[in-house]
Amino acid sequence: MNSKPNGVCAPEGFYAGAAFAGVKASGTKDDVAILYSSTPCSAAAVYTSNKVKADCLQVTKEHIAAGNLQAVVVNSGNANAVAPNGYANAVKTADAAAAKLHLSPDQIAVASTGVIGVELPAEKIVKAIDKIELSKDGSDAAAHAIMTTDTKEKTAVETFTVSGVTCTMGAICKGSGMIHPNMGTMLCFITTDAAIDPALLEKALQKAVKRTFNCVSVDGDTSTNDMCLVMANGQAKNPEITAEDEDYAEFYKALYSIMEKMAIAIASDGEGASRLMTVTVKNAKEERQAYTLARSVACSTLFKAALFGKDANWGRVVCALGYADTDFDVKGVDITFESKAGSLPVFINGLACGFDEEHASKVLGEDAVTVLIDLHKGEQECTCWGCDLTYDYVRINGDYRT
Amino acid sequence: MNSKPNGVCAPEGFYAGAAFAGVKASGTKDDVAILYSSTPCSAAAVYTSNKVKADCLQVTKEHIAAGNLQAVVVNSGNANAVAPNGYANAVKTADAAAAKLHLSPDQIAVASTGVIGVELPAEKIVKAIDKIELSKDGSDAAAHAIMTTDTKEKTAVETFTVSGVTCTMGAICKGSGMIHPNMGTMLCFITTDAAIDPALLEKALQKAVKRTFNCVSVDGDTSTNDMCLVMANGQAKNPEITAEDEDYAEFYKALYSIMEKMAIAIASDGEGASRLMTVTVKNAKEERQAYTLARSVACSTLFKAALFGKDANWGRVVCALGYADTDFDVKGVDITFESKAGSLPVFINGLACGFDEEHASKVLGEDAVTVLIDLHKGEQECTCWGCDLTYDYVRINGDYRT
Repeated sequence: MNSKPNGVCAPEGFYAGAAFAGVKASGTKDDVAILYSSTPCSAAAVYTSNKVKADCLQVTKEHIAAGNLQAVVVNSGNANAVAPNGYANAVKTADAAAAKLHLSPDQIAVASTGVIGVELPAEKIVKAIDKIELSKDGSDAAAHAIMTTDTKEKTAVETFTVSGVTCTMGAICKGSGMIHPNMGTMLCFITTDAAIDPALLEKALQKAVKRTFNCVSVDGDTSTNDMCLVMANGQAKNPEITAEDEDYAEFYKALYSIMEKMAIAIASDGEGASRLMTVTVKNAKEERQAYTLARSVACSTLFKAALFGKDANWGRVVCALGYADTDFDVKGVDITFESKAGSLPVFINGLACGFDEEHASKVLGEDAVTVLIDLHKGEQECTCWGCDLTYDYVRINGDYRT
Repeated sequence: MNSKPNGVCAPEGFYAGAAFAGVKASGTKDDVAILYSSTPCSAAAVYTSNKVKADCLQVTKEHIAAGNLQAVVVNSGNANAVAPNGYANAVKTADAAAAKLHLSPDQIAVASTGVIGVELPAEKIVKAIDKIELSKDGSDAAAHAIMTTDTKEKTAVETFTVSGVTCTMGAICKGSGMIHPNMGTMLCFITTDAAIDPALLEKALQKAVKRTFNCVSVDGDTSTNDMCLVMANGQAKNPEITAEDEDYAEFYKALYSIMEKMAIAIASDGEGASRLMTVTVKNAKEERQAYTLARSVACSTLFKAALFGKDANWGRVVCALGYADTDFDVKGVDITFESKAGSLPVFINGLACGFDEEHASKVLGEDAVTVLIDLHKGEQECTCWGCDLTYDYVRINGDYRT
């Protein structure tokens, strides 16, 4: 890890920048960003499973069809979903970025995040694109420009070794509300200077997203605009990864690690969240069962509210396990809450055990709380991430459009 | 309809009463109730689909196996779910009620609602059972005794005619949080003096619950204790309903109507709710599709928060339609918000239409708001009910146990 991560610009040959377009009438911060590689990249992306998809996703799918890209243009403040002239405006945005960067439009991915149903002010975005100055220090500006209700920029960097060559991978992402990914997720852009075949890149991304972004839920709402995109430009000069060998394993490890960091960053910056919830189900018969159970707890509105109240209300955990759509028998199950303040067993071998309420309140009062559920039925496990449900979530979403 | 509904005591031969047991240490109101019929009843019940079921449900299932019952004993303040000695304590409760009423224990249904995982104070309940005075005016006392976070007693009465004989049906129910029924639901007790075969009673209940309680969601959490129970004692002296004829149709109409009223009462008294949300999807190809789409909107955390903010955020409606687990194509869809303050078309033929924000705020500011979604694809429809997500929901559930 670099001591000062530079996100998507950390790998060789990647540049970023941002500018102010005023996409949202009330906007005051930069809201359009470009990520650019000085050479063509292998590229892969996953998208929302929502049947209503933003038009920018359609344009990106068409452009990425051959497995390569060289730049991304992204705006916040408007989702360009179910909006008049959505496809035409996404194309206009890609065309403007292509003209600026002297690339063919099919080398450009387009992403948007913000309010649904309002026409994208494409002219404002086109003007802003023209103003963007790309630099090797531009990652933070880009990370900031794609934020909506996010309170923190989300960025990470990993280094890894492929056939003796040190490669770097960087990422920025955004996501805070309408987070319940199921396939792709929110917006996440990952860059690397490793050389890798596009088909393998796609395979690695598909696998990693299942155990990272698809394990996050803030509010159970799957957005129309989710996208996770990875670009590999090969400038580290490693021999290209073309088979599922040790080099691929190293690459996958870095990709998984960076995506896990981004997924956790999104959960802990959930809209209005005061604490991160990590739910681990272990010793399940099947991974899918562990996933379904962990996700049910992480999504339980009632347990999320209890967590906000620092209330060790394990009854709501058991209830959420019981209504999850998978096999579950409460017999033999252990439940423990864990945090920096210590460990709090609350349920042993399928029955309540007493606990000290003062200690409970300390354990649940930390910024990050883990719910550990041991089924004692097998060897598979899965971890999901979420956050508590707070007054601020209601405040933020009670009046988002204005 | 009676001018002064007397709930479960309105039909001939039914009596009710309540007393204080102090089931919850902090409790101050009556918390144990009995409903009693002076003669044996045909009986049917539906229960929660949660795989973790309260022990009282097991006892009730055993007692109702032959299709008849004569009384119900119910407590609030403790769910007797995943609790030490749960089965034994449910049996103790039934036995005490049986002794008081001079009935066999298998004529008694047992229901509980409240905190999960704490041992039921059976001795306190047994003492309270002894104190209960049953009367023809006891329905309101029983309705009050089964409340937890409910803010209003929920009761209804219907009259209907079977072969020229006037019959009466009454109901009380409770339910405010952990409401996302899928099979049975919260606690609802329905009494009638009509005579009906137990198998037909079961059939009518199963059918009606699908379009009433199973269409309600407050928070997406399916409780461990849901139960809807109906008892028919035949004291109206109609010829017993033994076939799916006109009389059965009349009976079903009354049952459906009373269950719909109770379902709406639960949704509008959702924990912390400031307004009732009714979501109707019409002109769908299949009823199941209409149900899945309507339920997805009624359960969307984001749209629930928007409704709290009186924000006509139809983008979140479209988003929830898109991630529902059924066919959906946004093309040709109309969306209209309706309330006593008027009608507000927001989406016509698959595209946003402009609207006046001041008018929108009035339409969405009423106590009851309908979201009308017209798919223009077929002739089926379904209505689901929910409520807004408010600060009070978070407050109530952030600290429920104490």
